[in-house]
Amino acid sequence: MNQGTWDKIRVVQYGCGKMGRILMRYLLEKGAEIVGAIDTDESIIDHDIGEIAGLNRQTGIKVKCHEETVLDNCDADIAILALQSYLPDMHKPILECVTRGINVITTSEEALYPWTTSPAITNQLDALAKRTGCTIVGSGMQDVFWVNFPALIAGGVHKISEIEGAVSYNVEDYGIALARAHGVGLTPEEFEKTVAHSLSMPAYVWNSNEALCMKMGWSIEKTQQKAIPVLADHDVKSETLGQVIKKGNAIGMSAVVTTLTHQGIVVETQCIGKVYEKGEGDLCEFTIHGEPDTRFSVSKPDTVAHTCATIVNRIPDVLHAPAGFFTMDKLPIPRHQTYPMFLNIGEC
Amino acid sequence: MNQGTWDKIRVVQYGCGKMGRILMRYLLEKGAEIVGAIDTDESIIDHDIGEIAGLNRQTGIKVKCHEETVLDNCDADIAILALQSYLPDMHKPILECVTRGINVITTSEEALYPWTTSPAITNQLDALAKRTGCTIVGSGMQDVFWVNFPALIAGGVHKISEIEGAVSYNVEDYGIALARAHGVGLTPEEFEKTVAHSLSMPAYVWNSNEALCMKMGWSIEKTQQKAIPVLADHDVKSETLGQVIKKGNAIGMSAVVTTLTHQGIVVETQCIGKVYEKGEGDLCEFTIHGEPDTRFSVSKPDTVAHTCATIVNRIPDVLHAPAGFFTMDKLPIPRHQTYPMFLNIGEC
Repeated sequence: MNQGTWDKIRVVQYGCGKMGRILMRYLLEKGAEIVGAIDTDESIIDHDIGEIAGLNRQTGIKVKCHEETVLDNCDADIAILALQSYLPDMHKPILECVTRGINVITTSEEALYPWTTSPAITNQLDALAKRTGCTIVGSGMQDVFWVNFPALIAGGVHKISEIEGAVSYNVEDYGIALARAHGVGLTPEEFEKTVAHSLSMPAYVWNSNEALCMKMGWSIEKTQQKAIPVLADHDVKSETLGQVIKKGNAIGMSAVVTTLTHQGIVVETQCIGKVYEKGEGDLCEFTIHGEPDTRFSVSKPDTVAHTCATIVNRIPDVLHAPAGFFTMDKLPIPRHQTYPMFLNIGEC
Repeated sequence: MNQGTWDKIRVVQYGCGKMGRILMRYLLEKGAEIVGAIDTDESIIDHDIGEIAGLNRQTGIKVKCHEETVLDNCDADIAILALQSYLPDMHKPILECVTRGINVITTSEEALYPWTTSPAITNQLDALAKRTGCTIVGSGMQDVFWVNFPALIAGGVHKISEIEGAVSYNVEDYGIALARAHGVGLTPEEFEKTVAHSLSMPAYVWNSNEALCMKMGWSIEKTQQKAIPVLADHDVKSETLGQVIKKGNAIGMSAVVTTLTHQGIVVETQCIGKVYEKGEGDLCEFTIHGEPDTRFSVSKPDTVAHTCATIVNRIPDVLHAPAGFFTMDKLPIPRHQTYPMFLNIGEC
């Protein structure tokens, strides 16, 4: 194939759980090529990704559990890491890709803007990625809806004193790791001892608040959070935990994250992650207090679908970005990618 | 002053009516310098703009009616034209600026994306602006809220079959020219004879639909509109017309504009402009039909304030854009400008 022409984007799907399966379907529908799939779940190892992703065909690519073997035996342009929420848990999987010069995009919520919450890991990965010539980006729902959305609307506002937001999601949609991080199933006392004061666990809006400040050109004075358990007022079944949460125990948490800036502008976002009951929908609403006051929202956003769609739409931006841990505040705004989504190998 | 440093942005306000007064206050609050003000309204000629804009101070700049004298006697970086909605009416005022090499930003709704609705005028102005080295941009509410807003949300969506929107505004807020273009006060018969079939009067969402398609990378097959009068069901007072609109006559119109694309995706926006009654608010809501279906809205947007804020926030983009009629679909997304808003004269 000649330079300056188009090629399929070659992707390794790293993590083939709830999100990974949707991501693989979206990738195949957009014309990307999945060249490897990694997961440690024994129930899906050696299964064809066409089956895992709910397509009615075999692709010849099977889920494997040894990431090194998969990564060494294909020429992937990028790996999608749909694994854990926090960067310390993501350090090794990202390293496996970056040491091989494979670009990374991840659903890890902390990776959206981890410069202050995990500075040592972020800087180490940034330096390594620059040496191996690849790019690391964290994206998902928050990229479009929690950061770029309020930043865009702010472009139509004259004066701003505060940006106030509330988002929510169903912890049942994201697997066991996220449910545990939200204290699902804990007694109030257990919640108070663990999740409530755990500063090593920033709420997801901590990272999105700070990314928003960066996009707005505001310098951060400090970010603080309060984590409040959301307690069940009757027994609630959690499919993810595979157990009934007793009345009085936590079905999740509400984190109120307040970011103060040296410009005097406050960004405060409430992030509610809990086990939903029937009929409940996600929340995504913001108010800019200023001139004029401006309220805007997405009605019951399908957070899982938006996360997967945003990740897939972001891939060309990652491939064209400079090397390093290149957080989304520095990328152009996400664009809807039309079909097929190819890589112009004459560019960058 | 040295090159590579900062300078105040020098602005001529051309049109000092309802919008112009707010624009001037926003400009002064953001640290721009108003170096001239033009209006033909005898009641404000020779009045200080500090008074006109509702500030409690004199600026020394007075409203003048002869545009040539004003434009010839200052070194303006940009003129803000808040005059008429349609480009044929804006041709001469834009020419006056562009022949002098003065950049133009205008609230003219057609100017948002006039390539298909007024192609001859647009191309002539584009060629002239390139010769004199200046830029013409149409902006306002539609820029952030009708074009960039759905385009951004589309970045979080996997598949799109249709974008459906509904926007409204109070024709009382925009002066007599806009009210007449909406058929306010006409009988149903007069409306049918004039506004209903007047293809020389594209609804404002015609231009925003097409700008949205350009931003999305969709090629336009055709755009069509239906104009339906909104009839008063009781007598309604119009402050702008200075008269009571009799029951059964038009208080405005609803235009349904459908843009078909060669990609098979449809953009259909309903644009309701009418005389509001007490308690009514503006509408700005969109649905992307696709995977997933996505509904998003701004709650009762303050259309006048958002138009003025967007225009002022857009000024640095205009000053840094290439010469020509450079429509907003090609500009970066609007950014909230912090204080003071200066021009880096070392750039571009």
